[in-house]
This record gives sequence, structure tokens and C-alpha cells, in this order.
Amino acid sequence: MSLHAEIHEQTAVWQHSYEQNREVVRAIARAVPLERIHHAFIAARGTSDNAARYASYLWGAMNQLPVTLAAPSLFSLYRQPPRLQSALVIGISQSGQSPDIVNVVAEGKRQGQPTLAITNEPESPLAQTADFVINIHAGVETAVAATKTYTTQLLAIAMLSAAWSQAEERFAAIERLGGWGTAVLAHDETIGQLAQRYRYMEQCVVLGRGYNYATAFEWSLKLKELTYVVAEPYSSADFRHGPIAIVERGFPVMAVAPTGAVLPDMHELLQKLAEEKRAELLIISNDAATLGLANSPIPLPIDLPEWLSPLVSIVPAQLFAYHLTGVKGYNTEAPRGLNKVTKTT
Amino acid sequence: MSLHAEIHEQTAVWQHSYEQNREVVRAIARAVPLERIHHAFIAARGTSDNAARYASYLWGAMNQLPVTLAAPSLFSLYRQPPRLQSALVIGISQSGQSPDIVNVVAEGKRQGQPTLAITNEPESPLAQTADFVINIHAGVETAVAATKTYTTQLLAIAMLSAAWSQAEERFAAIERLGGWGTAVLAHDETIGQLAQRYRYMEQCVVLGRGYNYATAFEWSLKLKELTYVVAEPYSSADFRHGPIAIVERGFPVMAVAPTGAVLPDMHELLQKLAEEKRAELLIISNDAATLGLANSPIPLPIDLPEWLSPLVSIVPAQLFAYHLTGVKGYNTEAPRGLNKVTKTT
Repeated sequence: MSLHAEIHEQTAVWQHSYEQNREVVRAIARAVPLERIHHAFIAARGTSDNAARYASYLWGAMNQLPVTLAAPSLFSLYRQPPRLQSALVIGISQSGQSPDIVNVVAEGKRQGQPTLAITNEPESPLAQTADFVINIHAGVETAVAATKTYTTQLLAIAMLSAAWSQAEERFAAIERLGGWGTAVLAHDETIGQLAQRYRYMEQCVVLGRGYNYATAFEWSLKLKELTYVVAEPYSSADFRHGPIAIVERGFPVMAVAPTGAVLPDMHELLQKLAEEKRAELLIISNDAATLGLANSPIPLPIDLPEWLSPLVSIVPAQLFAYHLTGVKGYNTEAPRGLNKVTKTT
Repeated sequence: MSLHAEIHEQTAVWQHSYEQNREVVRAIARAVPLERIHHAFIAARGTSDNAARYASYLWGAMNQLPVTLAAPSLFSLYRQPPRLQSALVIGISQSGQSPDIVNVVAEGKRQGQPTLAITNEPESPLAQTADFVINIHAGVETAVAATKTYTTQLLAIAMLSAAWSQAEERFAAIERLGGWGTAVLAHDETIGQLAQRYRYMEQCVVLGRGYNYATAFEWSLKLKELTYVVAEPYSSADFRHGPIAIVERGFPVMAVAPTGAVLPDMHELLQKLAEEKRAELLIISNDAATLGLANSPIPLPIDLPEWLSPLVSIVPAQLFAYHLTGVKGYNTEAPRGLNKVTKTT
């Protein structure tokens, strides 16, 4: 299946994954109640690491669970794993193959802590090592650039959060994802036209904050993998601490800024970039005033809740990266220098 | 004092800071023994966040203490702070002013956890909020780009690690930092000449791993703040997972690769970049074979221990950013769009 087809397939994949995992996440939430764990310790690389960033905000805000992102080299190269007392140890990996991620989960088990794998391959070394497995059920992903496996990892993270909260209204919101996804997929052709404008873009920054800090990272990764644009992700807060210096007139800034708790902060920064710096702004948002600052606005559904917005807001970003790849004359199915499975130690 | 003078002042500042804090770190290590805490929870922004990255590797490897990097927006914007049970809550900030960092430490105190401030301003809101304070004693930093306050933050982190380990031989190694610093500062003029070659560089990546993952981030931040080059930091492991796609013939790659546990992995990647990708390599290392891969090699002292190398390896990187700023015709003392104190919420 092509990259474009896999992007479009996501709404159906979410529905299937949701149905398969409804009971799985509740069982895990019962087996590992939040009273038993003081933090989640997550090992992941690349796209999966971006999913871990979503977990760190979502579980922090909704479940009061701090998330520690593992430094896998402590386990593999330094051979000095930290103490994992009171941690739920989690590996996130599409293929479940990367030895350094498996290592971290194996060490968690050795130390007697509960372990969880979030993977597309239930027979993989990662899944076989962990006590609990969420099979994301994304189906085979053929394209080298991950799309549906990323959003189904986010879905698993959102579902586990809802299960820990025992919040039926949050499961009900998750059931509406397909509709919101369909709404953004309808902008496919518009995004294809808009991508023309960025034919000669060689570098950019990608801004997001809070739940959508993950979206900024994943959008930037897709741009690098597919279009070879040097795209650097930032939170709006970190961007003000130094990197804003690189912005001159016409410098391209991509931003994801849905309505919610972080919008006022994002809006203020984007306004400064538009009015003082005269930056070029491509903005994904469902706030009219924020979209009004953009050279290239991409709308999100109005009633999209902020906590679920990363699943939906990455979809137009995937489409943008896909179309820009074609506009630049590159191959969307075979990015140079990449393999689907990367085994880092 | 100018940026250049502050870079050169570092060896003297380290000595002073070491003498002032020898007993302070031992007292903190006694008051907050590792048995009492399951993880360190650190809030920091910009340069201070890069110091936190060093803590995450050093305390992980040397003290088996996992480090969680706080998501300050959970406290300030979402108003949903996580539970901080069994955590030592730490704020790192040169000025001690940023409300979001102070917020995190205040929440740690509210939850009854021990709190620590690492700051250059012992009268700041951050220092007044925390139970324990390490005053980094860097003196007034005039330049907008932080240099000596970064390395003295690293020093505080290294000293607290040695104090927790009750390892006198590690304090003895710390006492040798001045000599190693003097050795790299002697390359100032050579680095100034070498910077000429990068006059027209507009973008690059900066690679480091393990303890020097922090160095890659801080080097890249100095390049962005001072030279407006779009410089993106990566660990060698993450770089293989996608971003390597952007490298074509002549693409500039900066790398910090001292001898130690992560060198074989860094060397293998740099060799691939040199031989297969024909990238342009600027390498800071004390390994002859690794330096041999570079278009522009910058040597480190041979006997520099890996765990302390981030203090020393950032110095030639600071000098490189300083000289490149001049070569590009920019102002080293007044980078555009930056203030010394950034108050993010």
C-alpha cells in the first residue's frame, strides 16, 4: 500500500484498533493501578518517541503520572541501568525489534517492575519480553515513513489514559475520532495545492506545545524523512529561549495550535512572528484568529477536544509532507538512506 | 565582559565554583540520600535544559537515579501537575526568574517532596522557593549567549553526583578540569581560522550521544542564537531513525565524540557519513581515528574522562560559534531577538 493510501486508511484503522483494544486497556489499568506506580518509564526511538511525548503530557495532565523518557544508551552502551523502583516500564516500537528498546523492558522485568509493550508486532522480541502488550493492530505498514502506526500508538496511549481514569465520557470522545479524521482528510486536495508554495523551502521550524509538542516533533520528522527539509521542532516556550533568533523576514514557520489550554501562549508567539518578524506561517488550527495569522491556514474541526487533537492534527501535516515530497520531485515510497526497521544499540 | 572573555574565564570560574560548593553538595547528598528518592524531576529551559540532559545521563549511569524532565506547561497552562511521590524536584535556571520553573519547584514543596535549586542568583524566586540551593557562583554573565553559567551548572551536577557516590577519586578528577579547559582554550586561534570555511553555512546537524547528548544540544543552541544557522541536535541513535535522510554530499555535520562507552557507535556513524554520504565533518574528539574522518578536526585532551567531557568539549564549540558569528559579520554581544532573562509561563 502506498504512503498516500496509508494516510487515508487511518480512520478505518483507528476504528479497528479501538475495538480490538477496548477491553485490553481496561485489563491493563486494573492489573497496574496508578496507586502502584510513581512514574512511567518509556523507551522509544524515532516516531515512537514522538508518541512517548504525547504520553508524557496526556498521562501527566489526565492521570497525574509523571513520564520519564529512558536514555537507552544507559542500558546498552554504558551498561549502567538506573533503578526502576515504582516505575511502569514501557517500550514503544512499531516493529518491536530494536535491541535497545527490548533491553530497557528486559531490565524493568529483571528489577521486578511491571512492563508493557506497545507494538504492531505481537510476536516480536519486545512483545515477548513484556508482561502486558497493546497490539496497535495497524495492519502491515508498507511505506517507510510511519503514519498509521504513529496515530494508533497515540490511540493506545489515549485509551490507556481513559481506562486509568475510568472515564466513559473519554471513551465516547475517542469513538468520534473517525469523524474528525474524515473531516481533515477532505482537505487533501487543498493541501496539495498549498504545498506548491513551499517547493524551494530548505529549512523551517515546527512549533507546538503541550499535547501537540508531539505533533511538532512528528511533523518535523516526516518533513526530514520525505522532503529532506531541515525542519526543527520546538515548543513555543523553548523557541523563545534562543532559537527565535534564526527567524528573519519570510522564514518558514509551521505551527499546530488547536484551541485549548496552550492556545493563548501559541497565539501570542505566532502573532509576534507574523507582525514583528514577518515570518511565513503555515498553521493548523481550529481557532479563527490564529488561522487568520497564517499565509497558509489549514483548518481543524471546531469541536475537536485538545487532549485528542494530536491524532487528528498530524493528519494534515502528513498530507503536507506527502504532497511536498511530490512537488519537490522526490519519491514518497523510497526515501533515501532509510530502512523500515532500524536496529540501534 | 564580552562573550569571548566569558568563554576564557571559565577555567577560573570552575575553580571558584568548586571551592564554594565542595561542602554544599556533600551536605545535600547527606540530607537527600538516594535511598529516599526514586527519581529526580527536573524543570529547566534553554541552556539550563541542556544541563538537565547531562544530569539525566550522569545520574543515571553513576547513581542509578532515573531523571524525569518536567513538562512545565502541565503545571502552568494545564494546571494539572503530576504526582511527585518519591521524587527530588529540581529547578535549574541561571536567573532563577522564570515563573514556570519556579512553579514546578513550588508544587514539589506543596507535595512534601525535597526540592533543589541550581542557579546563579541565590536571592531569586527559584532559590527562595527551594529547600536546598546550589549557587553556581559563575559571577555576572553579561553576554546574552550563556557559556560559563552552562558549564558551572554541569559542574554542580557532576559534584552532586560525586557526593552521592561518596567517591573521592571523582572529586580528584573534577579538580583537574582547569587543566583540561586550558588545553582546549589554547586552540582558540586555530578554531578562528577554521570557522572561515563555514562562512556560508546555513544549516547543519550536531551529533552527540550519552553524556555528550547535552553537548550536541548546547552547541546547536549557541549556533542558532549567535550565527542564525539552523542547527539541529541529535543522538547518533535517533539520527539513524529517519533524519539521516537529509544528508547529501557536502552537508555539514558537527560531532562531539570523545573516547568512552559511546565512541564505537559514534565512530561507526561518522565513518558512514564520511565514506558513504561524503558529508562535511567538523569533529571534536580525542580519538585519533575519529579525528581522522573530519574535514575540520578539533582535538580534546587525551586523558579526559568521558563523564566529565561535556564540561570541556563544549568549550571549543563555544569558541567555534563565537568565531563563526564574527566571520558571518554578526554581533556576538547582541544577538537579534533575544533577552538575557526569558520569563515563560
